[in-house]
Amino acid sequence: MRLKDLGERALLAKLAPLGYPEAAPLPPGDDAGGVWAEGVAWLLKTDGFLYREVALRGMGPFEVGFRGVAATASDLLVKMGRPLGFTLGLFLPEDLEEGFVLELVRGAAEAAKRLGAFLLGGDTNAGVEVALTVAGYAWAEAPLPRRAFPGDLLYLVGDRWGRTGAAIWAHYQGVDLKAFPQIREAAFYPLPRLGLLALAGLPRGSLDSSDGLAETLWQLSETGVRVEVEALPLYPDVLALAKGEAQALEWVLYGGEEFEAVLAVPPEREGELWARAQAVGLPLFRAGRVLEGEGVYFQGRPVARKGYDHFRP
Amino acid sequence: MRLKDLGERALLAKLAPLGYPEAAPLPPGDDAGGVWAEGVAWLLKTDGFLYREVALRGMGPFEVGFRGVAATASDLLVKMGRPLGFTLGLFLPEDLEEGFVLELVRGAAEAAKRLGAFLLGGDTNAGVEVALTVAGYAWAEAPLPRRAFPGDLLYLVGDRWGRTGAAIWAHYQGVDLKAFPQIREAAFYPLPRLGLLALAGLPRGSLDSSDGLAETLWQLSETGVRVEVEALPLYPDVLALAKGEAQALEWVLYGGEEFEAVLAVPPEREGELWARAQAVGLPLFRAGRVLEGEGVYFQGRPVARKGYDHFRP
Repeated sequence: MRLKDLGERALLAKLAPLGYPEAAPLPPGDDAGGVWAEGVAWLLKTDGFLYREVALRGMGPFEVGFRGVAATASDLLVKMGRPLGFTLGLFLPEDLEEGFVLELVRGAAEAAKRLGAFLLGGDTNAGVEVALTVAGYAWAEAPLPRRAFPGDLLYLVGDRWGRTGAAIWAHYQGVDLKAFPQIREAAFYPLPRLGLLALAGLPRGSLDSSDGLAETLWQLSETGVRVEVEALPLYPDVLALAKGEAQALEWVLYGGEEFEAVLAVPPEREGELWARAQAVGLPLFRAGRVLEGEGVYFQGRPVARKGYDHFRP
Repeated sequence: MRLKDLGERALLAKLAPLGYPEAAPLPPGDDAGGVWAEGVAWLLKTDGFLYREVALRGMGPFEVGFRGVAATASDLLVKMGRPLGFTLGLFLPEDLEEGFVLELVRGAAEAAKRLGAFLLGGDTNAGVEVALTVAGYAWAEAPLPRRAFPGDLLYLVGDRWGRTGAAIWAHYQGVDLKAFPQIREAAFYPLPRLGLLALAGLPRGSLDSSDGLAETLWQLSETGVRVEVEALPLYPDVLALAKGEAQALEWVLYGGEEFEAVLAVPPEREGELWARAQAVGLPLFRAGRVLEGEGVYFQGRPVARKGYDHFRP
């Protein structure tokens, strides 16, 4: 079967178990993979993308390099992994200016630095268009899988919900984001949150949201639960840019590129969760709860699954 | 300046220090990067390539996946790093058959398994042609930099010298390799050598040879020494395929894709080196010595530097 008929999700499900260790700290297909060594989980993650697919209007190579490290780091952090370093695998047209490449790598270095980590080299190859593959590794004492039990509370971490979707919409509509600095910042510099590590031991499970919140919640429901969303974060600037609440909700559910965390939290740990998040300045939003059953619902109505598929866009 | 004018080596020299840690276990630009953690060096390496550039006649996706992990693992092993796991970043045309991708990943998993390591997931994206970026990590108690002191002996590890160059020549000449199983094996399944780890503590420095032995020796000489090659390994099957010794030497010096190690060894450790190599079945070849000065010489004559450059092939 050809990839465009199979689809990306089905392909990844077939690839994930190949060569994966049996006693790994996280199951195959989770946000990151890893091995145990000296009693600590060492996580490894790779994320690749085409420059033209992620460079919104106003973003340059610096922002795209920054975004590359951010995307990989998010998968590591949401597993409670502390990022140590990153490498860049670059495909570059031979006619490209060196200044472009230097800015790309400077942006990646800046994101790594803000996460207390480093760039550890990379590799360059000629290619017909600019493509990046970022790899990153991290260590985690207690890595957190994609997991939720009925009765858990559903939490969203961070403040980029809807904002990245709004920025992607503005890009395609040719709308200037000067008057919307938080939307611009969310899309241009989506730094994952080191503060997540302060929550260690509290959540039951966690997922990185990068293909859109709806897709992320569907992935959570596939672990064998029903996800009941009661409320979604609608920020004033997102509402101001949207033509009504329906569009703002669309951005929150289907925007993507958030690089934020979705948590399942046992109710008895809720107080401690708020206390620790507040101590490190981590934005939290209680979005709903996890029940027995299946599927994803928002205020009682089913949430459509419309994830992005690279092989049938 | 455009990349094709700047050249790959000059570009990599500018990129290597960006974001690199100050107190790293290996200097920027070495075969792998890394950080110290808990008294151990954690190494990270990325290597990317286009499928069509490495798939010789008779190689399929399995062999190319195998080659991908082998290339990255070689850089880790030659730094005395024990590989733990690898990820694959894949760019794939949407019309590609899923069976092709599965074979690619199975080949990568097989190489990882033979190295006592694992595949830890990956990422897929649409692309105009098949491109792979392999990332791998390893731990090393005493990572070995690119380094040599005057007086050191020059050693070549392994038995792929000249064979991979011969296979690449045979590919472009349309010559069948059925009668040359060791040449075919060297090019199709260039497994790096775990046995290198048995040499820990003996070599002064080491380099991975993948762009050709001459280029590798030039990189060694750039650390501030003169490399004096006295002899090169000329295997009977390589000589049998070559039109004379000159062509065989050309393959040894400029073949590339060996994924073998070049070592600088203090003379007083030579006996122990041979003993340990023999104990683990590691092929060794004493190729010459390191002197004060600069440049690379073979039996007194300068060795031309003709490394492969992705941006001006």
